[in-house]
Amino acid sequence: MTLEEQVLERIKPSTDEKQKLEEVTSELLAKVSKSAASLGVSNIIPKLVGSAARNTWISGTHDLDIFIAFPADTRREDLEKNGLRIARNVANEGQNIEERYAEHPYLKMEYKGFDVDLVPCFAVDSASEIISAVDRTPFHNEFIKKTIPGREDDVLIMKQFMKGTGTYGSELRTQGFSGYLTELLIVHYGSFRNVIRNVCNWKPGLTIDMLEHGTIKHHDSLIVIDPTDPKRNVAAALSLNQFAQFIDGCRAYSEEPSEEFFFPKEKEPMNEDDIIHMMNSRRSSFIAIVFKAPHLVDDILYPQLDKMEQSIRALFEEYEFQVLNSGYWAKEEVIVLIELISSQLPLVKKHRGPPVWVCGHAKGFKDKYVYSDDLFSLYIEDGFYIADIRRKFATAKELIEAKIESCSLGKHLGKAVSSGFVTVEDTDIAKIKDPGFRRFLRKWEHGK
Amino acid sequence: MTLEEQVLERIKPSTDEKQKLEEVTSELLAKVSKSAASLGVSNIIPKLVGSAARNTWISGTHDLDIFIAFPADTRREDLEKNGLRIARNVANEGQNIEERYAEHPYLKMEYKGFDVDLVPCFAVDSASEIISAVDRTPFHNEFIKKTIPGREDDVLIMKQFMKGTGTYGSELRTQGFSGYLTELLIVHYGSFRNVIRNVCNWKPGLTIDMLEHGTIKHHDSLIVIDPTDPKRNVAAALSLNQFAQFIDGCRAYSEEPSEEFFFPKEKEPMNEDDIIHMMNSRRSSFIAIVFKAPHLVDDILYPQLDKMEQSIRALFEEYEFQVLNSGYWAKEEVIVLIELISSQLPLVKKHRGPPVWVCGHAKGFKDKYVYSDDLFSLYIEDGFYIADIRRKFATAKELIEAKIESCSLGKHLGKAVSSGFVTVEDTDIAKIKDPGFRRFLRKWEHGK
Repeated sequence: MTLEEQVLERIKPSTDEKQKLEEVTSELLAKVSKSAASLGVSNIIPKLVGSAARNTWISGTHDLDIFIAFPADTRREDLEKNGLRIARNVANEGQNIEERYAEHPYLKMEYKGFDVDLVPCFAVDSASEIISAVDRTPFHNEFIKKTIPGREDDVLIMKQFMKGTGTYGSELRTQGFSGYLTELLIVHYGSFRNVIRNVCNWKPGLTIDMLEHGTIKHHDSLIVIDPTDPKRNVAAALSLNQFAQFIDGCRAYSEEPSEEFFFPKEKEPMNEDDIIHMMNSRRSSFIAIVFKAPHLVDDILYPQLDKMEQSIRALFEEYEFQVLNSGYWAKEEVIVLIELISSQLPLVKKHRGPPVWVCGHAKGFKDKYVYSDDLFSLYIEDGFYIADIRRKFATAKELIEAKIESCSLGKHLGKAVSSGFVTVEDTDIAKIKDPGFRRFLRKWEHGK
Repeated sequence: MTLEEQVLERIKPSTDEKQKLEEVTSELLAKVSKSAASLGVSNIIPKLVGSAARNTWISGTHDLDIFIAFPADTRREDLEKNGLRIARNVANEGQNIEERYAEHPYLKMEYKGFDVDLVPCFAVDSASEIISAVDRTPFHNEFIKKTIPGREDDVLIMKQFMKGTGTYGSELRTQGFSGYLTELLIVHYGSFRNVIRNVCNWKPGLTIDMLEHGTIKHHDSLIVIDPTDPKRNVAAALSLNQFAQFIDGCRAYSEEPSEEFFFPKEKEPMNEDDIIHMMNSRRSSFIAIVFKAPHLVDDILYPQLDKMEQSIRALFEEYEFQVLNSGYWAKEEVIVLIELISSQLPLVKKHRGPPVWVCGHAKGFKDKYVYSDDLFSLYIEDGFYIADIRRKFATAKELIEAKIESCSLGKHLGKAVSSGFVTVEDTDIAKIKDPGFRRFLRKWEHGK
């Protein structure tokens, strides 16, 4: 049995599992129709979409996306109102019911062991005429159902490979490959092995346009023109780093395939001694900014964390602290961790003034510094006045404490930081006990 | 009496001093003629050139430049041989005689309290036809003797101002204003005060071409076309920094004139406590490289010192040590002093590899580092492979000791360093007792 067959054996749903899914689906579709009828909404069509409908779901994932398609000429208010009424009716027998809002409201629930989304949409004639973003999904469904048969197993193996290498998922936290994008890669290249082989030679800007109908120039790392919508890049959410990570993964796998790519061992948290040893052997400076995590969905939280990390890096660079690496980890607490060349700078700072021959500015500069208590020395270098002056923030801690709130942190994180944060430095960071955080610190190590 | 009149009183030669100079000059000119005749060299003309000939010499400076002009069609060997024979004859009664070699040989001696140069030259028809660089001097002499009368005192005051502000002298150590250039500025602007007034608004690239006969585009800070040679910039030796320093001095003087500009108090050497206090208050790192000074004339030594200082700065920057300031001091020892943000760097160094998608390079990079003992961590950032590796030189001292000899130091300094040097760091530098060096350290202070 090949490695890929072994993987498939672990991830392919059993006949029982499939049958169970089909039963629950039929039940739910019938419930939607019945519920609509009982509410006097006669013209809707319920349909299963997503990987469950395409036989591209991995064993153990029990997601059912049930769409409730309204005629395209339905008024938006009616769709929202009636969609939700039908969904609430169906959800009578569900648990953990949540009403969510994307472009319009939908409903999430747990039902007989499945995570069910009940999503109203407009039944438009083509994907280029969509009214709401979700209206596209049924077209994706049709395209994949037509083109994938016979290659479902390759999709499963591909998805598992992406999960194992951390590149699966197009949500803002991951910025990797969506399920639909994965399916399209299999359709385009024909098999898991062919995807691997081709990805090894991908370069940024690569365009895949199966139907040769693309109409717009995209500026993304990867461009996969949507077969159902010539204007859309299915890979728009893929970050440059995940694009690179995927190439790296495919190349490493093609050189030396192993089960590890699909099912990596979960990293052990570092222990206190490991962390201290890691820091002492690098001899750089670490500073952690710790505060209570706000309650937010990942798609709101993670973009703000990215922004915060970048703002803090920029703050350090502005004040001449050189950043080596950074990262963040979030659970009950958010910890933004920055590694610096040094968390201490000399008190003296070189401040370049105007060239000597720019008369007005030169006078202003000299007048400002000559009698200042903050001046160490004033001289001319390469024709410019230079004042060696006292630095305002000579330690990373002082800088963060004085300036973090004026950074651009994003609305919710800005608030969270304002209501209190602490800084923890160097080996004191090893006292933070959360195993998730200590696993995150493995980023600073190399697993050979 | 105005300030400038007071200055003039201190620097203008007395009648006695002038008479003495004229007597000695006559004596020497006669000796040259007599000596030539006795050697059977009949067609030379001896002449006094330089500031002594133009009445632009400052009291106490006793330099006599006696040129021995040979017909332009003299063969170079004959000029060199006969020039030196005549000079040696004249020097019979001199002391401390030295034969020197510029483009051709000349003779230096002390004679009745004067520093005398006896310089053979070709009597060409115009300065644009010179055979040897010194042939130009008699033309300068003629031009200034024609144009300066009545403004000699302004030249004296101007020269003293430049001496006081450290900008006088076109030799390679100073890279400031030559005597001839100073005289031309007075001829052009008319008076000391007018020079000061105009210099305040100088900008780099300013061109003064009194005869409007310049033929070549020069790319210097200041361009003063030689009235005796349209191709030559008299200010070519002026550095950008001395250009700026002079503007700064003129501007400060015009705002608040004082005797200090002409006769600055010599700075006191710093004492040990001053030095320690200076270093501790800046909280930067200092490293001094100390070695025995080779015996060289200033025009050879100082360009090599400049080169060495720049090479050491470049070495530090190449290995990621950030240089704040630097300087050198030379007497029996050479001391190159570098001020760094820090003399210590973390052991970890970020090493950027190729982009992930450049297949061949990417493989080479990973193969090189993955199993290396020097690797801390390997990851992808912005699409590039990054290896965090062990830094080779984590202290400034280690770097200097390992690499200084491979720096481009100039021939003589390279040899001197090879035969031994030491590094001295931070407050240990305060133990170096030479008052000249301790005066040089005032550069790191501000005299308010």
